[in-house]
Amino acid sequence: MSARPDIFTARRYASSIFDAVGRMTAYHRGVKRQGYSDTETDVLEYLASTGQSLGMEAEYDRAGNLWLTVPGADRSLPALVTGSHADSVPEGGNFDGLAGIIAGLVLAYSWHRRGYVPARDFRVLCLRCEENAFFGRAYVGSSGMLGLLTQDDLLLRHRTEDTTLGEAISACGFDSQLLTCGKPLIDISKIAAFIELHIEQGPVLDQESEIRTGIVTGIRGSVLHKHIVCRGETAHGGAVDYEYRRDAFMASAVLAAEMEKHWTKWLEDGEDLVYTTGVAFTGENAAYSAVPGEFTFSADIRSLSAETRDRFHELLLAEAERIGREHRVEFLIDQPVYMVPTPTTDDVRRRLLQAAERANVPVRELPSGAGHDAAVIASAGIPTGMIFVANQNGSHNPFEDMQMPDFLRGCAVLAQTIEDWDAESV
Amino acid sequence: MSARPDIFTARRYASSIFDAVGRMTAYHRGVKRQGYSDTETDVLEYLASTGQSLGMEAEYDRAGNLWLTVPGADRSLPALVTGSHADSVPEGGNFDGLAGIIAGLVLAYSWHRRGYVPARDFRVLCLRCEENAFFGRAYVGSSGMLGLLTQDDLLLRHRTEDTTLGEAISACGFDSQLLTCGKPLIDISKIAAFIELHIEQGPVLDQESEIRTGIVTGIRGSVLHKHIVCRGETAHGGAVDYEYRRDAFMASAVLAAEMEKHWTKWLEDGEDLVYTTGVAFTGENAAYSAVPGEFTFSADIRSLSAETRDRFHELLLAEAERIGREHRVEFLIDQPVYMVPTPTTDDVRRRLLQAAERANVPVRELPSGAGHDAAVIASAGIPTGMIFVANQNGSHNPFEDMQMPDFLRGCAVLAQTIEDWDAESV
Repeated sequence: MSARPDIFTARRYASSIFDAVGRMTAYHRGVKRQGYSDTETDVLEYLASTGQSLGMEAEYDRAGNLWLTVPGADRSLPALVTGSHADSVPEGGNFDGLAGIIAGLVLAYSWHRRGYVPARDFRVLCLRCEENAFFGRAYVGSSGMLGLLTQDDLLLRHRTEDTTLGEAISACGFDSQLLTCGKPLIDISKIAAFIELHIEQGPVLDQESEIRTGIVTGIRGSVLHKHIVCRGETAHGGAVDYEYRRDAFMASAVLAAEMEKHWTKWLEDGEDLVYTTGVAFTGENAAYSAVPGEFTFSADIRSLSAETRDRFHELLLAEAERIGREHRVEFLIDQPVYMVPTPTTDDVRRRLLQAAERANVPVRELPSGAGHDAAVIASAGIPTGMIFVANQNGSHNPFEDMQMPDFLRGCAVLAQTIEDWDAESV
Repeated sequence: MSARPDIFTARRYASSIFDAVGRMTAYHRGVKRQGYSDTETDVLEYLASTGQSLGMEAEYDRAGNLWLTVPGADRSLPALVTGSHADSVPEGGNFDGLAGIIAGLVLAYSWHRRGYVPARDFRVLCLRCEENAFFGRAYVGSSGMLGLLTQDDLLLRHRTEDTTLGEAISACGFDSQLLTCGKPLIDISKIAAFIELHIEQGPVLDQESEIRTGIVTGIRGSVLHKHIVCRGETAHGGAVDYEYRRDAFMASAVLAAEMEKHWTKWLEDGEDLVYTTGVAFTGENAAYSAVPGEFTFSADIRSLSAETRDRFHELLLAEAERIGREHRVEFLIDQPVYMVPTPTTDDVRRRLLQAAERANVPVRELPSGAGHDAAVIASAGIPTGMIFVANQNGSHNPFEDMQMPDFLRGCAVLAQTIEDWDAESV
């Protein structure tokens, strides 16, 4: 028995939207849709007109996110909301974020053709600026609509251009100061649930032949140090012997290797944990034959368990202290950025699993290692779930490769979930 | 009994030359005397006129090095030559190189005042471009006068400017092509010995209270990889678990930590060895929360023993292979640059030790970890020795701090050695 033929007939419709947005935002081998840029605005306006031609209402919230609404039979009921983010990293893939928006349009398209009117409003939320690639702050659109940005966030500078995040938001016509007010700028009581469909950014589902759809159990929390600076002493690499060295690179390498040993041990003990140094470099005066006096590196610790995350973080600091002493260097630890682990809502997860079964889509439950707007929205007390779609070659690169049948299977689960929920409302 | 009072009276004379050259070449907190630049030419011309006012002859060889000569009683005898290099790294110290030239002038000044005429020509060689900081090639002046540059050397590009080493040499008025001819452009048979005085670039002598002068046993050889590239796979740092990663930074860190373990073990076994990664960095697309797909680092191995150097080099390659396999990354190994270890000449070293005793200067024998023009000159078959002078804060930085009494003690050993050698000639 195949899954939801009505959804699978939307294949050409979905492809045409992916292609149109991909063409609008082409950049080198991939796409570039910077948060709070004219390009992102253009994408939202294109999506608005696409929704409107299906009879959807279009409006922007105070943070500039686009809400497309299929009016329900009883508009007083809290809406069921789906969606994801419209932006991308530079030279990213076309599916990260956009898939979750087009999934919502696929449902609206299918209902429009069937003449189905949902019991309650069905809304597709097109979020801005989820990626931290340009301004160093993730989840800006979702945090902004909840009033959760800070003054420091608004002052973050663009990685290459002479502008701040606050200025970019203002240039799009929105009051950036308002987004720091500390309380939601949307009516949370009007949202029954938020369900985000997203490509999986790890390789788990793509290694399966049958079960290529995931129901997310929770979103890993993180603690991120962007710049830990190891300070030693620059010295002649030929003339200064081991016992006189204060080698910033070597001490940092030993620290990394020790943390890898701890990490693999913790994994054997059954803990959920990833540890990443994504950025690392010697100082500007580094030379081939000089003992480096400075080495800078990032450290990103993630776990579904806040307790695991925090214990590993403490271990990192303790090991930096010990290895710093042994190597006679100092690790200058910057202020970390925390993200709490966020379980998805039990009720929403149960509905997703039941709907998958009814729609004949085999699914597995799995955690999300990557962070998502869904975590921000769940933290505001909104019942939240996530659907993962198999994807090749990871994300944040031009080689993202979600297959259309996998996407439509995810859409089928989403459609079934919304329709079943709707059926309870009448 | 104090050491050579005639030499110690040259203190003010020596200081005035250090100060004059330091002022001519001041740069930020230190000095900048780029090889084959107008600044270096100006320094050589100033040194030439300084020598000439002591009655020295001045001439340039085909590579642009300056030779200042105190004519000997018998000009047919091979000369005794001292000297060092006139150039510096950017924002370097005033003593690295220049001390060995001014030491020669101190002898000429002392003899001029005493009316002493050496038995054979005494020559002060002021070499160009010893440092590799600007063009990536060390020992250019000494190698050039021996015809040992290569076409590849001439094509090396300046680190920041749009010019090559060959163009820089030509712009100083010398035929760069000639310096690649493969045979000496100076008459080696006219050189009895070369003795280079240099600041110690390590901390050994400066930690001594009495023995602040060194007689160099040999110059460490090296094998240098400028850019070993570790290639893994970029992946989401939250979404991709340990077993799926191909983490280029982590694999490189584990390799470095393993090499440090081997290194300290080899030191315990009595081997002479230093191992330095001076430059290391993630790729341009690196991000805090991405597993890095690329990490580049240099590796510099030095030892007084070519056999030790080569065995450790082989171990590095074997460990890169093993760790690369375990971490599912590849280490792309660039072509290494070799420098053979060079012992100083037994006869010259014995003369230096005897002269130090006669001059009442306490000395210790020690190796040179840093490379020097003396190694290039020794490799051409010229009997060679080196005197080290205690120095604070290492070298290649503005904080080099050679003390004048230490410098003059080194000059006293040099003067005694030349005069004793001279005494044999009459």
